[in-house]
Amino acid sequence: MADRFDRKQPIGVFDSGIGGLTVAKAIATLLPEEELVYFGDTAHMPYGDKSPDSIRYYCLQIAKFLLEQNCKMIVIACNTASSVGYRVLLDFFKKSSLFVNVVDPLVDATVLRGFSKVGVIATKATVNSRVYGLKLSEKQPDLEVASLATPLLAPMIESGYFHDNISRAIINDYLSQPILQNIEALLLACTHYPLIHKDIDEFYQHKVHILDSTDVTAAAVQKKLADHNLLNDKRRNPHRFYVSDYTQSFEETTRIFYQEEIHLEHCAIW
Amino acid sequence: MADRFDRKQPIGVFDSGIGGLTVAKAIATLLPEEELVYFGDTAHMPYGDKSPDSIRYYCLQIAKFLLEQNCKMIVIACNTASSVGYRVLLDFFKKSSLFVNVVDPLVDATVLRGFSKVGVIATKATVNSRVYGLKLSEKQPDLEVASLATPLLAPMIESGYFHDNISRAIINDYLSQPILQNIEALLLACTHYPLIHKDIDEFYQHKVHILDSTDVTAAAVQKKLADHNLLNDKRRNPHRFYVSDYTQSFEETTRIFYQEEIHLEHCAIW
Repeated sequence: MADRFDRKQPIGVFDSGIGGLTVAKAIATLLPEEELVYFGDTAHMPYGDKSPDSIRYYCLQIAKFLLEQNCKMIVIACNTASSVGYRVLLDFFKKSSLFVNVVDPLVDATVLRGFSKVGVIATKATVNSRVYGLKLSEKQPDLEVASLATPLLAPMIESGYFHDNISRAIINDYLSQPILQNIEALLLACTHYPLIHKDIDEFYQHKVHILDSTDVTAAAVQKKLADHNLLNDKRRNPHRFYVSDYTQSFEETTRIFYQEEIHLEHCAIW
Repeated sequence: MADRFDRKQPIGVFDSGIGGLTVAKAIATLLPEEELVYFGDTAHMPYGDKSPDSIRYYCLQIAKFLLEQNCKMIVIACNTASSVGYRVLLDFFKKSSLFVNVVDPLVDATVLRGFSKVGVIATKATVNSRVYGLKLSEKQPDLEVASLATPLLAPMIESGYFHDNISRAIINDYLSQPILQNIEALLLACTHYPLIHKDIDEFYQHKVHILDSTDVTAAAVQKKLADHNLLNDKRRNPHRFYVSDYTQSFEETTRIFYQEEIHLEHCAIW
């Protein structure tokens, strides 16, 4: 089915907001010749509090927009959207594009390590979907998975609190919950959380493995494009970054996620 | 124009989410014979990060819904929506309903006290609108107004952090900002913030007056209804509480804002 695609087509990347830029950055770094079209659904952010049906509808509309941009692949750069919306995107559009989510690469990377107990921190919607527990158990039935909703972490990071006393207090409070005791690894199942990787590592005094979706998702993108002979050899256009609601504040915040200045374009798809 | 209204009609109350329930509760307590129709736009919450145009559009659609519910009055129980959307609601619907926002009653209560410097804490969108500074200066030109965006406070409260070490650390960080030095009063310009009134009072060791919109807005509702001879003498129906996106988590969180158990109904107006 992917034979109809051309390697020069862009890769679509979407998230509820701007956190998915951590994944976009990992893809742009690993695959500098690929052209990215990013869509942040800032009109509905955050997805973590939304209902599954609403999230699925948003995913469908965003994928439709990215297909109109002629994307050969769509990367769901949001754990909540990946947990709740991936299946419905395949149901609707699997003949129209390749799809990569951020859950499966992290699950695959985790089960390779042979842990006996791991923790997962994520939004309420991701935790309620139970996707990590189900997928991890399917691939490694003896693995114990402890999931904890940590809803204040994403707004904390967006408000500029990381590597400081406030973030340390909040992280300490969440990670001290009894459910996370005796884990060997912690999965950062939200695209914002790589920004507090260091703080979490310090909390655990480097004794717990900390895994996130960014680099493993970029590697999964590379592998899937290679498998379909769709890796681009020369980027012809700059990356484009769209948001469904534009504020100056979003534009300023992109820097903490993408590590360089980018320009957001407002694109009213709702 | 209000002659066409009937005292038995309900009062509409809306907010970006469930924080406006603090205002609804104040109205229900002061005016127990009034019937309330509450609408929380949980599909777009929070409004604090959204653009002014998006917020105005949401306000128009919600007011339209509340007018279809036959409301004699619409209370904008959200500082962000009041700051950005009040004028457009009057432009479109002033012949169709009475309107009360949460900014004017707080401004009126503040200027009565004769302070020389006050602080305002609110969402980014409310602070960027400059509404508090403009309205306060108009009524008391010599009043110095220092506004500070405190975007982490609402998610902090929604995540259940108040009256604890985490909330104290975050509140301390915001209220220690130089801009708020030497204030005589602090205006809590977000409907979530009455829940941390006590924490803020402790931060200031009871030396700064702390004002919020809840009771003064309920009093403004009472006065406007009385002025139009529209105070209800007997409530015939239970209050109704609608949300544009429903999750169990919202329903559970209502208790912290409304202080009693209520049932949310999903109403898909988008």
